[in-house]
Amino acid sequence: MKSKLISIGDEILIGQIINTNAAYLGDILFSAGLPAEKMIVIGDEERILIDELEDSLKNYDVTIITGGLGPTHDDVTKPALVKFFRDELIQNENVLTHVKNIFASRNLKMPEVNYGQALVPRKSEVIWNHNGTAPGIWYDSGGRIIVSLPGVPYEMKSMMENFVIPKLKEKFSEKERGYCIQKTLLTTGPGESTLNEILGDIKELTGDNKLAFLPSADGVRLRITVSAESLKEAERRLIETENKIRIKAGDFIYGINEETIELNIGKILRERNKTLSVAESCTGGEISSRIVSIAGSSDYYWGGICAYSNREKVKILGVREETLVKYGAVSEETAIEMADGVRKFMETDYAVSTTGIAGPSGGTEQKPVGLVWIGFSGAGKSFAMKFQFGGRRDINISRASMRALEILRRELLNIEQNYY
Amino acid sequence: MKSKLISIGDEILIGQIINTNAAYLGDILFSAGLPAEKMIVIGDEERILIDELEDSLKNYDVTIITGGLGPTHDDVTKPALVKFFRDELIQNENVLTHVKNIFASRNLKMPEVNYGQALVPRKSEVIWNHNGTAPGIWYDSGGRIIVSLPGVPYEMKSMMENFVIPKLKEKFSEKERGYCIQKTLLTTGPGESTLNEILGDIKELTGDNKLAFLPSADGVRLRITVSAESLKEAERRLIETENKIRIKAGDFIYGINEETIELNIGKILRERNKTLSVAESCTGGEISSRIVSIAGSSDYYWGGICAYSNREKVKILGVREETLVKYGAVSEETAIEMADGVRKFMETDYAVSTTGIAGPSGGTEQKPVGLVWIGFSGAGKSFAMKFQFGGRRDINISRASMRALEILRRELLNIEQNYY
Repeated sequence: MKSKLISIGDEILIGQIINTNAAYLGDILFSAGLPAEKMIVIGDEERILIDELEDSLKNYDVTIITGGLGPTHDDVTKPALVKFFRDELIQNENVLTHVKNIFASRNLKMPEVNYGQALVPRKSEVIWNHNGTAPGIWYDSGGRIIVSLPGVPYEMKSMMENFVIPKLKEKFSEKERGYCIQKTLLTTGPGESTLNEILGDIKELTGDNKLAFLPSADGVRLRITVSAESLKEAERRLIETENKIRIKAGDFIYGINEETIELNIGKILRERNKTLSVAESCTGGEISSRIVSIAGSSDYYWGGICAYSNREKVKILGVREETLVKYGAVSEETAIEMADGVRKFMETDYAVSTTGIAGPSGGTEQKPVGLVWIGFSGAGKSFAMKFQFGGRRDINISRASMRALEILRRELLNIEQNYY
Repeated sequence: MKSKLISIGDEILIGQIINTNAAYLGDILFSAGLPAEKMIVIGDEERILIDELEDSLKNYDVTIITGGLGPTHDDVTKPALVKFFRDELIQNENVLTHVKNIFASRNLKMPEVNYGQALVPRKSEVIWNHNGTAPGIWYDSGGRIIVSLPGVPYEMKSMMENFVIPKLKEKFSEKERGYCIQKTLLTTGPGESTLNEILGDIKELTGDNKLAFLPSADGVRLRITVSAESLKEAERRLIETENKIRIKAGDFIYGINEETIELNIGKILRERNKTLSVAESCTGGEISSRIVSIAGSSDYYWGGICAYSNREKVKILGVREETLVKYGAVSEETAIEMADGVRKFMETDYAVSTTGIAGPSGGTEQKPVGLVWIGFSGAGKSFAMKFQFGGRRDINISRASMRALEILRRELLNIEQNYY
């Protein structure tokens, strides 16, 4: 079985946005046993889309179209589908009510143009869009499936996961699709090549399975892919490889699949009924906002201070003036006093802190751009660790935030604080 | 004139890597007057590539292929090109010396397989790869250009900029390519359809120019594209359309092209020598981290408080216990006291605050998930505004953060605070 993706949008063709939708769809279709053989990006032009639809019906079991479904003049997907399938648009009352409700719930008047959202092709099935106004469209043409979804990533993803993938799995049996499973182990600390060295002979670890090294801002994701004749066999082989990897690099693994480190820290803190606060200088609120991104974080997170000026470090966090004068704001001593200070002030069990030179300016020979001290306070001890990240401001901020969370995770789990 | 991109790689099809090469190429080709009409991703399969080459010769002036040029068995680009053009591979001595030197400089023995890198098609022109071992290939077939480049981004980019683009500009005159320029106006506040209504008849605004509505988390980006016979004419028509849009929707435009609202707020504060602080509850540090993402923000940003618990709101921000009891943490009164409190505490000229119910739980009938109060304090006044966002935690947080920044921007520029 094979599938094809069609992304519609001039903004992709001219390089204004990166086509992350295609990567998401490629991944989820592969996991469902319906791997993409072709991905295409075209503009809002009916003629080209119709050519592609012809090719799809001839050659592909499944075609997913994203984009071009909005209510404005430049959206061509619906007209092209109607023309191609010799179909017609009819008003769907449920969709209309849904669209009206969305505007009403935000106390907004619905613009006229949105009536168009409720027009759907007669021969198609409507895919409900819980997160937006444009419904999706499902055509089954002699066993060939053509699906059209909005291009807004979270709308599209929710529709794929809640409707399209389950329905495709119903339509095509597991036997037709084959058994392919994946698991991603999330690591942080060592870079791609160091991790490769730590793992040693990859072939020995994986056998016939595939192992991909996927670097990201937070660390390297290790994705194991297993194809087998039965689900049971696939699962057995996956666990075997995972265990071999964990023996060699388990300390660096902070989660699996879509988990984030802040999610797993939250789980630990909640389980143990412990609380957290943070004091940020160079990371400027990123650690705090990552913690707060987790639903229910108010149960264990008391709050954070972004003390961007020295005055704030002294006034709120109780960093001593003499510490700042003697060692400077970016120092082991300041990082420790910040962590201790916020923990005492907010009366929490744990605290982490950051102070560094994010760049691009402000560096000196002794304290170059990318230098960050990360402090920890809790469970009867306080310490700070020094890191030298790179030259880019955004990367320094995100690496320092991730490392602070990793230091906290390791303290919570009693894992040695060794970094590469 | 139009171009086509072919990216080769199974890792893209299964979503393992995001196709950033295509975005880069789309951008650079568009700027050169050779816009991509189609982007394609396929795997390492000769048959499919040859089909695409046929389509290229028929329909496209320029085709850029990336990937599939490595030395291993699964790289199909060179064999496919040789077969398609009825060509043959010959050894290029210069390339061989270059490849040997690369291994020598790293003190590595050159694996046998790399001799293959020095084999190039007889009828093609070699594109020198200064940064790696795989040379590029340039075919000119009756005026149709087909270029094959390695998939490694920095190798590919350097070859595009130093060889391919200059040679394409030689090959096709400026007149043939045309002048195409773009500008993106960044708006926030009204959604896509509301903005459409505010702008009215799009045709009247844009004439022969193109206007695209690009929704993002921060708001709708309006992209104007102008093609003309001369650069001067293109610029004149761009300004004309931009001015028409600004007359109707200027208040909602916070920046252009790649600017962010935090960048433009920073510019204003620095110019006026004014300072800022923030008090965040539901946004949890996101406003602070956006402000700090701007290099040099320490000049005007004193810091932020993430008061996630009520106790912190009282203790640091000076919100009155009775306010919390009488009106609740998510209320106009609390938002105002938070903004006033942080501004006084940090001694800044301006402050903004957020307090709301990010969700997914914690909502009530009176105060549903998505309800956010945003406070402002500065220039002799304090106020708070109420917003009802949606049901998703991450989106509520990012919308509330953006709206708080927009309220600040409007106060700084004396723009009326009306929202849709």
